[in-house]
Amino acid sequence: MSKTFVLAPDSFKGSMTAKEVCVAMEKGIKKVYPDANCIHVPMADGGEGTVQSLVDATNGKIFEVEVTGPLGNKVTAKYGIMGDNETAVIEMAEASGIQYVTNETKNPMVTTTYGTGELIRACLDKGIKKIIIGIGGSATNDGGAGMAEALGVKFLDRHGNQLPRGGGYLDQLSEIDISNLDPRLKEVSIFVACDVTNPLCGENGASYVFGPQKGATEEMVRILDRNLSHYADVVKKQLGKDVKNIPGAGAAGGLGAGLLIFTQATLQKGIDLVIEYSQLRSKIKDADYVFTGEGGIDFQTQYGKTPYGVAKVAKEFNKKVIAIAGHIGEGIDVLYDKGIDAIFGIIPEAGSLDKILKDGAKNVERTCENIARLIKMI
Amino acid sequence: MSKTFVLAPDSFKGSMTAKEVCVAMEKGIKKVYPDANCIHVPMADGGEGTVQSLVDATNGKIFEVEVTGPLGNKVTAKYGIMGDNETAVIEMAEASGIQYVTNETKNPMVTTTYGTGELIRACLDKGIKKIIIGIGGSATNDGGAGMAEALGVKFLDRHGNQLPRGGGYLDQLSEIDISNLDPRLKEVSIFVACDVTNPLCGENGASYVFGPQKGATEEMVRILDRNLSHYADVVKKQLGKDVKNIPGAGAAGGLGAGLLIFTQATLQKGIDLVIEYSQLRSKIKDADYVFTGEGGIDFQTQYGKTPYGVAKVAKEFNKKVIAIAGHIGEGIDVLYDKGIDAIFGIIPEAGSLDKILKDGAKNVERTCENIARLIKMI
Repeated sequence: MSKTFVLAPDSFKGSMTAKEVCVAMEKGIKKVYPDANCIHVPMADGGEGTVQSLVDATNGKIFEVEVTGPLGNKVTAKYGIMGDNETAVIEMAEASGIQYVTNETKNPMVTTTYGTGELIRACLDKGIKKIIIGIGGSATNDGGAGMAEALGVKFLDRHGNQLPRGGGYLDQLSEIDISNLDPRLKEVSIFVACDVTNPLCGENGASYVFGPQKGATEEMVRILDRNLSHYADVVKKQLGKDVKNIPGAGAAGGLGAGLLIFTQATLQKGIDLVIEYSQLRSKIKDADYVFTGEGGIDFQTQYGKTPYGVAKVAKEFNKKVIAIAGHIGEGIDVLYDKGIDAIFGIIPEAGSLDKILKDGAKNVERTCENIARLIKMI
Repeated sequence: MSKTFVLAPDSFKGSMTAKEVCVAMEKGIKKVYPDANCIHVPMADGGEGTVQSLVDATNGKIFEVEVTGPLGNKVTAKYGIMGDNETAVIEMAEASGIQYVTNETKNPMVTTTYGTGELIRACLDKGIKKIIIGIGGSATNDGGAGMAEALGVKFLDRHGNQLPRGGGYLDQLSEIDISNLDPRLKEVSIFVACDVTNPLCGENGASYVFGPQKGATEEMVRILDRNLSHYADVVKKQLGKDVKNIPGAGAAGGLGAGLLIFTQATLQKGIDLVIEYSQLRSKIKDADYVFTGEGGIDFQTQYGKTPYGVAKVAKEFNKKVIAIAGHIGEGIDVLYDKGIDAIFGIIPEAGSLDKILKDGAKNVERTCENIARLIKMI
């Protein structure tokens, strides 16, 4: 009987999408098992590549929309609608990501999540009912106020004027007017892929922990933290929601909190969302072998990265898991106990990262061919 | 019952001796099979590392002796006496190798194999009965005349004067006086590890094919070839031996011929000699798995390199062979048909050759651990 291989890699960043990794894996395996049944499950963990992988995993479609970047200029953002035609998948960084600012222009006092709100609105316009949103890689520290503004919320100062965008102005917040909040949001479930547990404010909060990498000076951090605290106080008083200490509220400069305040949102581990929406579980059920992988694998993989998540599911069904990686870092021994049975590097020789990235598919194919040869040999 | 692994790698040049590779392989395997029986068979193919590997494979001993380098200066050359205490192993390059000349000093008109003769003499002085001699990497083109001179032969011009050393003077050869040739040579069998089939002279001969890489200009090549031809003619006339067209006589600038003329020598494939003297065959017989490897593996591996030779022996006993390498080159597919069941790279990430060479043992260990994990998993 022909063998069934479930191929569930993450993307290899800078080299291949997860789908492309699946294709290369299958090529290698088919050289050894020509009649193998290879099931492609392009994976992601809520970070970069999540839109592409979930679209590919479900035969969905990628769309583009022009939105407001973190500094107010227009940027083109991709989002996906999955094969069920009612679930959208967004990466906040497509609209409001750190890649849109430079060392010179990064300034979390003024950067805004407005574009992320526009991305959500684009999904509402398509009539979708569920949105998965990955919120890593933000350039912002505005508590999601910009996102909410794009969806109809008004943030007013004590004179009734709308605040400028950016976390640096939230100290002037006096009133939040949600009367024009897009009513369609009530009918839409938002699943936030969020792997951090930071609260909105305080020394473990958004501003102190993530502000500096977004360009905040020590003084800015103090201001931004105080402003988010004030914002949460106004929210609590006027909207009756207490988000200050919810784990994950501090993700993406407080966008976690903003989504909890203004939308029907729940926070979940990114990998768990992708496992659910890629239907990995039902696909793994009948596998003989599960192949996974990621550009880099090391001890951090155990904290919710794709190979870890795939192994966790595979172990529920007592399946064998083999992982491949372009970069094998320190401490992979811990992964053996987490259900990854064996880990192989794909790099054939010493050399530049450029060449390695370019030859990704060839190296994945050769490595998987040899893994399959070993499996067949035994 | 505990598994038996035969570990039969070549050295990883610039990184590890074959023995060190064995040790790293065992470490990795023992993490998965703590009670595995790991049999170390450090291998070589007659090239660099052959002395070390055969000494290690037989619990022999390394000696050093000061000899004459290819340019006449003194060099320190290693040689080995194997565990049987009657077989020596020599690499001609230790005495007369290309590493002793520079781009400025390389000159096959004057370089000599005299030191190689001194190495052989050192073995005779130890009372040994067999010598294995690897003849790769020579700086010389003297037909082995220097080697013979060190063992008592006199090469005389028509005035009865001894010729200067070097292939450039052999045109003046008029008489070969073997009356003082070391008589002990008659009792000693010499096994020449020789992987080329080039004849002594002509367009496929020593001078035309290998002269240029030793520094010969086009004119020198013509002179050297003519001189070797004259040398062979004198040998034929005076000693009754016709070596001109023997395949392999042109190896190492004609040292192949010189050994055939003046000693009890036979030419053999290097890998076959190492297989025999390492007793690989009897060790593989009871193996469950055979691990081999070399610094680099590519399509050329099939032309007598260690992993090919190990696989050939393993297949006689229908054993599984897994190879590892630091550099996996093009065309390895052909090796699957030659009995290598699977091939894995050991490099964990893009990076400099320096670091890769330094981390060799760690990478061999990790890779073999994961191969063992996969074997155990299946």
